[in-house]
Amino acid sequence: MNKILRVNTRTGQIHATTCSEAQQHWGGRSYIAHHLLAEVDPVCEPLGRKNCLIVASGLLADTAVTTAGRLSLGGKSPLTGGVKEANVGGEAGRKMARLGLKAVVLEDAPEKPGPRILLVGQNGAELLDAPELGGKETSPTLAALRQRFGERIGALCIGPAGEMRLPAAAVATTDSSGVQLRVAGRGGLGAVMGAKGIKAIVFDAAEARQVKAADSKALAAAARELGKILLDAPKTANRHNYGTPAVLALCDTLGILPTRNFREGRFEQAEAISGEMIAELIDRRGGEGRRGLPCVQGCIIACSNIFADPSGKTTVASLQYENIGLLGSNCGIGDIDAIAGLNHLANQVGIDAIEGGAAVGVAMEAGLLPFGDAAGAQDLLRQVGQGTALGRIIGSGVATAGRVLGVRRIPATKGQAMPAYDPRSLKGIGVTYAMSPMGADHTAGNALETARGHDPLSREGQVEISLRLQIRAAILDSLGVCLFIRPAFVKNPELAARLLNARHGWQWTYRDVRAMGLECLRAEREFNRQAGLDESREDVPEFMRSEPLPPHNTVFDVDREEMRRIWEIQLPEDVF
Amino acid sequence: MNKILRVNTRTGQIHATTCSEAQQHWGGRSYIAHHLLAEVDPVCEPLGRKNCLIVASGLLADTAVTTAGRLSLGGKSPLTGGVKEANVGGEAGRKMARLGLKAVVLEDAPEKPGPRILLVGQNGAELLDAPELGGKETSPTLAALRQRFGERIGALCIGPAGEMRLPAAAVATTDSSGVQLRVAGRGGLGAVMGAKGIKAIVFDAAEARQVKAADSKALAAAARELGKILLDAPKTANRHNYGTPAVLALCDTLGILPTRNFREGRFEQAEAISGEMIAELIDRRGGEGRRGLPCVQGCIIACSNIFADPSGKTTVASLQYENIGLLGSNCGIGDIDAIAGLNHLANQVGIDAIEGGAAVGVAMEAGLLPFGDAAGAQDLLRQVGQGTALGRIIGSGVATAGRVLGVRRIPATKGQAMPAYDPRSLKGIGVTYAMSPMGADHTAGNALETARGHDPLSREGQVEISLRLQIRAAILDSLGVCLFIRPAFVKNPELAARLLNARHGWQWTYRDVRAMGLECLRAEREFNRQAGLDESREDVPEFMRSEPLPPHNTVFDVDREEMRRIWEIQLPEDVF
Repeated sequence: MNKILRVNTRTGQIHATTCSEAQQHWGGRSYIAHHLLAEVDPVCEPLGRKNCLIVASGLLADTAVTTAGRLSLGGKSPLTGGVKEANVGGEAGRKMARLGLKAVVLEDAPEKPGPRILLVGQNGAELLDAPELGGKETSPTLAALRQRFGERIGALCIGPAGEMRLPAAAVATTDSSGVQLRVAGRGGLGAVMGAKGIKAIVFDAAEARQVKAADSKALAAAARELGKILLDAPKTANRHNYGTPAVLALCDTLGILPTRNFREGRFEQAEAISGEMIAELIDRRGGEGRRGLPCVQGCIIACSNIFADPSGKTTVASLQYENIGLLGSNCGIGDIDAIAGLNHLANQVGIDAIEGGAAVGVAMEAGLLPFGDAAGAQDLLRQVGQGTALGRIIGSGVATAGRVLGVRRIPATKGQAMPAYDPRSLKGIGVTYAMSPMGADHTAGNALETARGHDPLSREGQVEISLRLQIRAAILDSLGVCLFIRPAFVKNPELAARLLNARHGWQWTYRDVRAMGLECLRAEREFNRQAGLDESREDVPEFMRSEPLPPHNTVFDVDREEMRRIWEIQLPEDVF
Repeated sequence: MNKILRVNTRTGQIHATTCSEAQQHWGGRSYIAHHLLAEVDPVCEPLGRKNCLIVASGLLADTAVTTAGRLSLGGKSPLTGGVKEANVGGEAGRKMARLGLKAVVLEDAPEKPGPRILLVGQNGAELLDAPELGGKETSPTLAALRQRFGERIGALCIGPAGEMRLPAAAVATTDSSGVQLRVAGRGGLGAVMGAKGIKAIVFDAAEARQVKAADSKALAAAARELGKILLDAPKTANRHNYGTPAVLALCDTLGILPTRNFREGRFEQAEAISGEMIAELIDRRGGEGRRGLPCVQGCIIACSNIFADPSGKTTVASLQYENIGLLGSNCGIGDIDAIAGLNHLANQVGIDAIEGGAAVGVAMEAGLLPFGDAAGAQDLLRQVGQGTALGRIIGSGVATAGRVLGVRRIPATKGQAMPAYDPRSLKGIGVTYAMSPMGADHTAGNALETARGHDPLSREGQVEISLRLQIRAAILDSLGVCLFIRPAFVKNPELAARLLNARHGWQWTYRDVRAMGLECLRAEREFNRQAGLDESREDVPEFMRSEPLPPHNTVFDVDREEMRRIWEIQLPEDVF
């Protein structure tokens, strides 16, 4: 896993290099951070020739460690103008790692981007013209790739939104069965891929073998220990049973469920869109519906689902909390079948469902359609794929949509839509939205997990909470594992070091792991600083500081000066 | 002229204050710079409650000094996110000054902006609901105001674009006859006015008298001297005869006339849209057409025109070079009647014709309509006023339009469209576009005037040229005079001080005048710095550094590091 494949999308030249000593210690998100800082001009235009799209394996990719195999995509974001890493489950990460690849880097940009496939195999890589894939939705694209290159490939692709270089465009992949569509949604990296003229990346590892670990026995032992802690953790069973929608009822109770463009924090139809209801419907309807599925082979949490319509036919897989929040309650829509249909459509046209849901929300606020109008929302998302003027507005993300449609209440920080946690009543996540190099991204440090132990309405201590969560996220995203395995490292931080040492033959302690996470954040912040994302961008939108959020009638009131000092806080070095 | 009128557009409270000793020395642009830095949170949302719209008189307003009476509008720009001053001729500046007003400041913002009139008279000011003006175009609005409040008012208004808070919205006014529509176009200040819910500001100075100068005789003598130098200057007659379109042929020759979205610097139909042709058509067609008109009463240059159609009926007044360049050659349109019609339409819906023309150009580049399609362009501008999705995209300005429409070649710096001077072959103006606190704005320092003395294709010396021009512009914009009177101050810098001393009773030398200009620029840069417009925003778009511009096949190659040191350059202190 020491190869870096560089593809010049203008000249078509492809060459592989072996990564340096330093690069060997980076993976996933940390690889992206350091690569961008070292090689990409921070002031470059995100969709121009100087940006690159990086696909990076995690440090534990293609091992038996549960959830390992998530893959990171990165580049300068067309939404935030800063560094972006978006990671995703599915099979592509494992396949990429099995080919010995630390990273694939798409460089430069063709004069006229057209649909091409980057095919990466055991014996090299090539660019294939693929006019037949032009304008195709994501699932048909991935199905066509599996048909052409075999079912054992791992593939990434963009939908029509990415080809149109719409700033909210996402990158999609599947699980090993090809049923679940998994999406690296945030930050508009699908537009960066589209600007490179790459419709799909295919990893064909059929002939390749799993890389041997430095100490296979130690790795297996540590992986087992991790699994055991996880299975004992109280949240794991809940996640397995109800998936991410398990938190919807909690978020509604806490008053942080975005409702009607973040006007309210509770939704009167919350029950109808809750995790419990989804599970009940899946079980009752039968047919293709499933729950408790893994997205990455071998994951023991297995929190994914296939959501089927009343006739048992798949609507979308997997249906996740954040998408329900943004496409559902945030649009005033309480019909879970309609929400699942919207999610499917966002996936197919290839935009981030969070960004798309938020943009539909501001279109509703602008009066283009009423809150609750599921058919109208469906029409808007369909238009994204068609590239109509209105569709392009929605596909440009919530900040641009709000600007064009003349809406003052825009739920975004650094140009990126907020996920389904209103920061006015979950203040720790507001600090993350404001301060994370990633912009408004719950996966960068979600304070929901602290809500039971620390009053989420209080502004006290939230900055420190955010910092701890941000470091955690940077570590997990660099290992290429799911955020949901954090209970294992909270209980035993050294386990993270043992896994890495067994895999790579290093001599790390947890402090080294933590230093890697901090270095990742530092590199990201430095890139952003040079890109011009300075203190002026580090806050929640104005309305969240002045407009009280029902039911708690709270505003976001964490002091800006206190937030700015976040990076000076010293946390204990042996705590995850 | 020492009164500052503050209008809280949320509460409706209005109060006047007398300006401080320091404020007395600021006018127009310098007043705006200092006010914004002192009172407006630089990170505020431009269309939110914390921004303000400032209308400021120049320091020589309501005197007999030729061209004096230009009025400055300012605020945080929804296009650039930084400081913006846009100034405009017409009668409103004089009327405002006659009421003793240094500035009118619209503060806060109503929950639901609706059309109101701010009526300012000799005995106070009031806000009047004006639902009948809602959605009205600019000329009918101004005509309705003249009908209601009398023909001697000075009035400012926005069109439907401003009411919709579209980021390219402008503020319009008229000359004393009500025939010419004059536009404070740049920076989207019409959207800021719209966000305040103010459709129009009316200055009724019928009962007021001209303020007495500290030394009327000295003022008259200095004003006469200024007039004499101007009348002797070789350019003045040319401007009088052909107006700003006089430079079109020169710009075509220099290869800097934007053509087909800045793909070329010469336009094959340049002759048909030149100043000479316009003059010929005006003379030949007769009817309402005129040339050599003043926009401000008493201006001796009188470079404005009324452009009439073949039947002699007014199409637009006044028809200016930059608008011809952007709506004409930049859109591949060589029919001057069509261009005049487009300019009229942009004025009426109330968007900046430069920004609008540039946005239509990128829509053409995106393939929505072919270059040269005047009817299609007309339709797009009409849609701006109608608020269709596509119209809103165009009305959001070129940067947003390019982003939404997936165009890589966007001729803008700091989010604002470039006026009709391609910086690849007029490098001094490229430095201004990149470095001026105003973004891409020719009035902030136009190197065209140096093109004869200093090779515009050379990168040498352009940074110094830009600095000199930027200081000049800051001075002239603070005095409230036209940039075209600069020959007088170039010949005799002390004349500027004499005018101010005679008007205000000061004891300034030219060095004090210059210090005021530098202080204005410093305040603007400091506001921008705090607003987050740092070095990362200080460059021309990428394509201009890599794509050669025919016919000279030049790229913009002034060194970024050299540009960044612009403010360290020491220029002689006695030179204008």
